[in-house]
Amino acid sequence: MAAQEPEHFGLTYNDVHNLIRASAAKIAEFKPDMLIAIVYPPCCSCGFFPARVLRTFLKTPERKGNIPIHAIGLSLYESLPGMTAEQIGAEVIRTQWLGPESGELLLGRRALIVDEVDDSRKTLHYAITELQRDVERALEALPESERDAKRTKFAVFVVHNKLKPKLAEIPAGIPYYAGEEIEDVWLDYPWEAQDIEEHDRLAAEGKKKRAAKTQ
Amino acid sequence: MAAQEPEHFGLTYNDVHNLIRASAAKIAEFKPDMLIAIVYPPCCSCGFFPARVLRTFLKTPERKGNIPIHAIGLSLYESLPGMTAEQIGAEVIRTQWLGPESGELLLGRRALIVDEVDDSRKTLHYAITELQRDVERALEALPESERDAKRTKFAVFVVHNKLKPKLAEIPAGIPYYAGEEIEDVWLDYPWEAQDIEEHDRLAAEGKKKRAAKTQ
Repeated sequence: MAAQEPEHFGLTYNDVHNLIRASAAKIAEFKPDMLIAIVYPPCCSCGFFPARVLRTFLKTPERKGNIPIHAIGLSLYESLPGMTAEQIGAEVIRTQWLGPESGELLLGRRALIVDEVDDSRKTLHYAITELQRDVERALEALPESERDAKRTKFAVFVVHNKLKPKLAEIPAGIPYYAGEEIEDVWLDYPWEAQDIEEHDRLAAEGKKKRAAKTQ
Repeated sequence: MAAQEPEHFGLTYNDVHNLIRASAAKIAEFKPDMLIAIVYPPCCSCGFFPARVLRTFLKTPERKGNIPIHAIGLSLYESLPGMTAEQIGAEVIRTQWLGPESGELLLGRRALIVDEVDDSRKTLHYAITELQRDVERALEALPESERDAKRTKFAVFVVHNKLKPKLAEIPAGIPYYAGEEIEDVWLDYPWEAQDIEEHDRLAAEGKKKRAAKTQ
């Protein structure tokens, strides 16, 4: 028997746009006042597009101006030669951060961390714990009585959460929003398409097939 | 007579995707090895989406891995109270940069600066001249004989160039690519749409009207 091709799940731009739209009401309850997109310079996935679209849906008449979007760059080194078993998949590298005053920037804010896909959850875990560490450092400069009020509230939004064993957890007490929970399939996002019309055609075909399966 | 509404020009996601696709062959001649997206935290426009899509079209079999995308954040303060005539529209503020080693990061690279719209050209001008200054600083640490080979080559890509008087110029010798040259209309990008199906319908309607006008 031939090896089975991993199942592909194609999404049009409008599909992704509407997944984000459908999540926005729930996310608005968290009242984020800054978005932190995770970007992966040498890789494909990136939280910038979802963050940009999400901001559109978080606009309210009360809020003057848009919610600012910041970016942090991370790389997950899965298999560099010469790594020990413990290091493989454990090494997350920062390629870009919020700046030297990261902690001060975060103080008192409600920060929503945005990513495209929650796969192993390792980079999300890393991002949250490192940002929390920056906050704790900045809090130390304040009188103890002011710290609780200034402690940053974090939450997470991903467009897709893959239903698979995770290698790390989201720390307790952090709201987590996913546009869609999905099996461990290969996600074909539109921004990776050479031919967008053909991509849309294949995405529509895939949807029909899945609909037929579940009937 | 009622004041005339500014003309709106709606673009679907696939329209933008295909504008970028059509520009990619020309941009590939510049052989960029890093993309620098201009982002505007408190504003709407952002070079991250075009940079992400463009990278898809710059993939070649020879190039291992993706071209890294970096971000610089800029704000253009047009009319803060108390500003003098000279300051109005002159004040560009950095909100995020390439890091303290910006110049060293840029040395020897072919960097393509990416933005959504070239409107007044002020932020593009600012971005290029500031990045060039970082490069010159880093070059000073090198022996004179090595400097020419290490001097960063810059180029610019924007999805839309508005045909209007510009307040600043792109420095001489810097290749400039625009997905489309367009009159000074109001661009409705899809990521700003609350209802993407309605947005697409209006974009199609607008295209029909413009086609009828030019016949």
